[in-house]
Amino acid sequence: MAANELSQEQLDKIYTFAVDLGRKAGQLLLESVEKRIGGGAQAIEEKDSAVDIVTQTDEDVEIFIKNAITSEFPTHKFIGEETYAKGQSREYLIDEHPTWCVDPLDGTVNFTHIFPMFCVSIAFIVNHRPVIGVVYAPFQDQLFSSCVNRGAWLNDKYRLPLIRNPSIPPMPANAPGKCVLSCEWGKDRRDIPDGNLYRKIESFLNLAAETGSRGGKGGMVHGVRSLGSATLDLAYTAMGSFDIWWEGGCWEWDVAAGIAILLEAGGLVTTANPPEDPETAPIPDARLGSRLYLAIRPAGPSATETGRETQERTVREVWKRVRKLEYERPGA
Amino acid sequence: MAANELSQEQLDKIYTFAVDLGRKAGQLLLESVEKRIGGGAQAIEEKDSAVDIVTQTDEDVEIFIKNAITSEFPTHKFIGEETYAKGQSREYLIDEHPTWCVDPLDGTVNFTHIFPMFCVSIAFIVNHRPVIGVVYAPFQDQLFSSCVNRGAWLNDKYRLPLIRNPSIPPMPANAPGKCVLSCEWGKDRRDIPDGNLYRKIESFLNLAAETGSRGGKGGMVHGVRSLGSATLDLAYTAMGSFDIWWEGGCWEWDVAAGIAILLEAGGLVTTANPPEDPETAPIPDARLGSRLYLAIRPAGPSATETGRETQERTVREVWKRVRKLEYERPGA
Repeated sequence: MAANELSQEQLDKIYTFAVDLGRKAGQLLLESVEKRIGGGAQAIEEKDSAVDIVTQTDEDVEIFIKNAITSEFPTHKFIGEETYAKGQSREYLIDEHPTWCVDPLDGTVNFTHIFPMFCVSIAFIVNHRPVIGVVYAPFQDQLFSSCVNRGAWLNDKYRLPLIRNPSIPPMPANAPGKCVLSCEWGKDRRDIPDGNLYRKIESFLNLAAETGSRGGKGGMVHGVRSLGSATLDLAYTAMGSFDIWWEGGCWEWDVAAGIAILLEAGGLVTTANPPEDPETAPIPDARLGSRLYLAIRPAGPSATETGRETQERTVREVWKRVRKLEYERPGA
Repeated sequence: MAANELSQEQLDKIYTFAVDLGRKAGQLLLESVEKRIGGGAQAIEEKDSAVDIVTQTDEDVEIFIKNAITSEFPTHKFIGEETYAKGQSREYLIDEHPTWCVDPLDGTVNFTHIFPMFCVSIAFIVNHRPVIGVVYAPFQDQLFSSCVNRGAWLNDKYRLPLIRNPSIPPMPANAPGKCVLSCEWGKDRRDIPDGNLYRKIESFLNLAAETGSRGGKGGMVHGVRSLGSATLDLAYTAMGSFDIWWEGGCWEWDVAAGIAILLEAGGLVTTANPPEDPETAPIPDARLGSRLYLAIRPAGPSATETGRETQERTVREVWKRVRKLEYERPGA
């Protein structure tokens, strides 16, 4: 058996390991937060600023995860956000080999401010496909996990998507109408005419404005949400809480685990950037290193369409309303 | 003793009652969600659509809360979102008498989509001042509560704001820089030139764009968050997770409990709409029925300012960057 061909039994073993690792790593994040909360915790010394604690936690948790993985699976590759960021290159390094792709702390700003939407994100990738995903948000004790052929779960108890009674609903007939849109303002705030910031806001506005307004682009989504964590955006899309997530600028460690969970739950992930003809262009699978993502929640059939057809219809309606974003990377 | 003068002992008793009531009401919301989740729950009959269940839950929980309150405190007034919405008037009905102001379900869209950011919101108001607040988000089991002179708390365990080790930080020296901004897109999506939607987005953009851009208005906030629940926006501002919440269009039952908690935690609430001269104008307390709110998190002193001074400086810097919003109400 080649290194990139793993049996279900092997995957199940790796899955169990990953879930346990996610919980332990999340616990480390929580302990770091508790140091900054008053009460029983010991006072932070003058030299330890909150920012230092956050940076140190980020690095410590990545080392903890990396050591655990390399000890258990020495032949697997490891790509982590912290070690990657310190390197010389921003090239896309994932190949066909079994690879762990890890963000020890997604939602760093949230973590700094103790807004609960931060998490650890652990993905296991084979042949470029995220096959196992573990996302743990410890402050609210929400663990999202998946393994191919084993379903996607919240806290090992609720199967994703949550809404499945009496059945998983199709995407709305007039999507993006009645959809909850998840999107992020991101870090690129440069005041450049037609720059990414303005392209994003124009896209958000098209999707939000009353139906048919703005030259026919008004999409009247049911709500617009911004959490500050790409990983949790994807996890909540897998859960069915968000119908649409549209984003550019994040990296593979921000999305790999979330994509694994979303796909196993029945969601769809393609590119954020609309093609020349959004009505008829093929809908490609998202490339992990592309930095451009459009995710649609799991969907069941309507009276006239399959679930997949309702998702693809939604992709095209979103593409008609959004601008192309410009995020580059070397080697991609 | 006049009806509007209550002893601390009486307030403490009411507080205990309100916390218990909030937990029970939140449990009803959770049971309603679980009916829509697959698994052990019994299938929803064809006639019971998800929308019907949500509307029915909203009404049932309000009746549950109202009955509990009128049974325990028959002389108190009660204003609830559901009963109010069915009435003829949208006038502001709160006066100096002891009044309960309740939203049985804040974040209705989130509840419908099973995004965990929904909650029950219970405020007790005396002489127009919210003196007790209970906000319970049952899906993530987060209970925020406060009573005058008793502090504000998360889950009866962590005092708000959370970050207080070694001390509660002042607002950043260059606020809104380094601040997390909480804001909402709201329901008014009309495509009217210079309408509320465009005024909001222009304000968000000013606060988000790189420092000094956009004619000097660029505020470079650390992050922009939208949760879809005014109540939880305020609760997380009291927690210190959000530094600034700026919003127009919500009603007193959306904010009364959150304001009680924020004030008891040490936060500031004033009007969203900037005065003629934001540098020197007085900073008024928010009027509960005004539909226009700017909230600043609790803050400690800096080397040169009191905590309150750092908050007021932040209010003025926000006012310089935002547009006036147009939300009216009869009798206000």
